[in-house]
Amino acid sequence: MTPSPVRRRLPPAERREEILKAATELIAASGFKGVTLEAFAAACGMTKAGLLHHFRSREELLIAVLERRDTLDLASVADTLEPAPDAAVARAVMSGFVRRNLAQRSLVQLYTVLSAEALDPAHPAHVYFRTRLSEGRAMLECYLLAWHPRPGQAAVDLLAFLDGLQLNWLRDGGIDFLAQWEAFADRFFAA
Amino acid sequence: MTPSPVRRRLPPAERREEILKAATELIAASGFKGVTLEAFAAACGMTKAGLLHHFRSREELLIAVLERRDTLDLASVADTLEPAPDAAVARAVMSGFVRRNLAQRSLVQLYTVLSAEALDPAHPAHVYFRTRLSEGRAMLECYLLAWHPRPGQAAVDLLAFLDGLQLNWLRDGGIDFLAQWEAFADRFFAA
Repeated sequence: MTPSPVRRRLPPAERREEILKAATELIAASGFKGVTLEAFAAACGMTKAGLLHHFRSREELLIAVLERRDTLDLASVADTLEPAPDAAVARAVMSGFVRRNLAQRSLVQLYTVLSAEALDPAHPAHVYFRTRLSEGRAMLECYLLAWHPRPGQAAVDLLAFLDGLQLNWLRDGGIDFLAQWEAFADRFFAA
Repeated sequence: MTPSPVRRRLPPAERREEILKAATELIAASGFKGVTLEAFAAACGMTKAGLLHHFRSREELLIAVLERRDTLDLASVADTLEPAPDAAVARAVMSGFVRRNLAQRSLVQLYTVLSAEALDPAHPAHVYFRTRLSEGRAMLECYLLAWHPRPGQAAVDLLAFLDGLQLNWLRDGGIDFLAQWEAFADRFFAA
């Protein structure tokens, strides 16, 4: 008899990573709406009580899924912490983010919906999204857009375009995300 | 004794406009979150039952508030249905929309939050936002961007940027919306 996954003992950090991986896969397959804590727990071979030991609420779990995605995205597209020397390098890095997002529509939808809900200061993800915006701006400004004559303004510009395009692409699958990105990038990286 | 506003008899279309005006003012003053149907009714000097005679639900009222804003915005910035002859005219019209939005932050927040929630096909505002996107794209393509070499693509580009900038500006009031718009427009309207 092989041991059931429920009973494997893992250090908390590994168990946490296992949960987030399973939750991400479940969201990719079924979206996040209507997926209960029980369903997330079942996908990890755990009970709801066991899951609540690692994440205090469904919202906390969803935020952790997004944080993990941020980390993986960054590790996948940027293999250096040197500022991009020119527009061409920066464009290639950003195109990497765009292509990753195209392949993870359900996560983009989770990000987009929580992002708007969390404008409310009482929302559990409010701080996550405020921090993500300010850190994202700073990172773009210092690393990816250091070659730009106005890196701070350009960072806001780039984030706005991508957030809005994601929203409208989720609404209308007929929008060619990649073609829209390339048209924007032709102007943006010519600055 | 002057008649109370409650008892004034108005044709349904006028009463509806009066309700939407009061609801818009209430949202401008208090936001939309936590504002109940009872509060909207009170702002119009009506009972909840009276309000429900005109709008079947809170969501229906909120969608009607946004539809009214669309109509007023359009009437205010465009006094012609001729296609914009060039980029300069188009830019002036779009700047008019941008300036109006800057002055109605609470309505922009209502639009932004409902817009993301309504990605869910079961949401009462799903059809409104799908229709608004396709009509907005068509209107930009045929009227405002007819001078553009790729008007359809440019329309998606413009809507994406403005939707995303609104979201990020609501999150961080330190973002200078107008300066960001002008920087984007310098590139966009030079096409």
